[in-house]
Amino acid sequence: MSISIHQATVASYGVSLKAFLAILDKAAAHAAAHKFDPSIYMTLRLRPDMLAFARQVQIFCDNAKNSTARLAGVEAPRFEDAEASLDELKARIQKTLDFLATVKGADLEAGANREIVFPVGPNKMQMLGANYLLHWALPNFYFHLTTAYGLLRYAGVDVGKRDFLGAVPGVTQL
Amino acid sequence: MSISIHQATVASYGVSLKAFLAILDKAAAHAAAHKFDPSIYMTLRLRPDMLAFARQVQIFCDNAKNSTARLAGVEAPRFEDAEASLDELKARIQKTLDFLATVKGADLEAGANREIVFPVGPNKMQMLGANYLLHWALPNFYFHLTTAYGLLRYAGVDVGKRDFLGAVPGVTQL
Repeated sequence: MSISIHQATVASYGVSLKAFLAILDKAAAHAAAHKFDPSIYMTLRLRPDMLAFARQVQIFCDNAKNSTARLAGVEAPRFEDAEASLDELKARIQKTLDFLATVKGADLEAGANREIVFPVGPNKMQMLGANYLLHWALPNFYFHLTTAYGLLRYAGVDVGKRDFLGAVPGVTQL
Repeated sequence: MSISIHQATVASYGVSLKAFLAILDKAAAHAAAHKFDPSIYMTLRLRPDMLAFARQVQIFCDNAKNSTARLAGVEAPRFEDAEASLDELKARIQKTLDFLATVKGADLEAGANREIVFPVGPNKMQMLGANYLLHWALPNFYFHLTTAYGLLRYAGVDVGKRDFLGAVPGVTQL
């Protein structure tokens, strides 16, 4: 028995992306309650040399769509990095979810054994699909997702790990 | 084709835990260069109601060892949460790596299809192994790992995503 690429990509990313839509709603409510412009979140950073909040969200969306597309051997849609509000970030997350829903399970399973080529800065890298998924795609996705979450936590938004985990599928309380 | 539980647990956790050992060395060097007591990191938080740095490290070690043990159907060693220095956190990470190295691949693969029971606060939860791994164990591990990393980033330690990703296995630059 092993785990499917579909569950490790489309299903996992889907849970997290939907969870982040709800987290962004909490961020908007926090801004309203404290009477600040929610677009201030967009440039939030812990340090001046860090990527800002909006960029973290754009990147984890791209991590999800591009890694899934590469493993399935299909073309991912390209999104302009032009979001200027929480609502526009929500729309990008929704577009990512919409793309993930189009990817076929059988195409993804074939990807585990294929060499995946992907850009890193100015370079091109190559990894076997299973390695790419587990040692590149998932750590990168969760890195930017958690960093974006942490910036909202830092800003005082009332979120916890339960919000981060979202609607965990298949869990039963005994 | 699909991916093995061993690669998704022992191998993935291993890469990240080793990467964090090197990150802790950078944190120690940063403290020395800026002439502050490195034990100050231990209680670092972004907000007063967050778990402190040392606890984040303890938890991601426990996420790695406990999820692997549950999937393999073996007993995990228990670690006291008594670390008081970066060196003691490094020792805990090393003990976690040592335990992971003892877990047999065949035991892990059988876990994907077994019901896993695990505590969450005062409750007991149950999930099928594959769901538990992808929708609970990995997101929790990366959540605490990235949060610990982010706290060091916030403290001014000169680390980047490359440090976080560590020695990515099987990657070739074209």
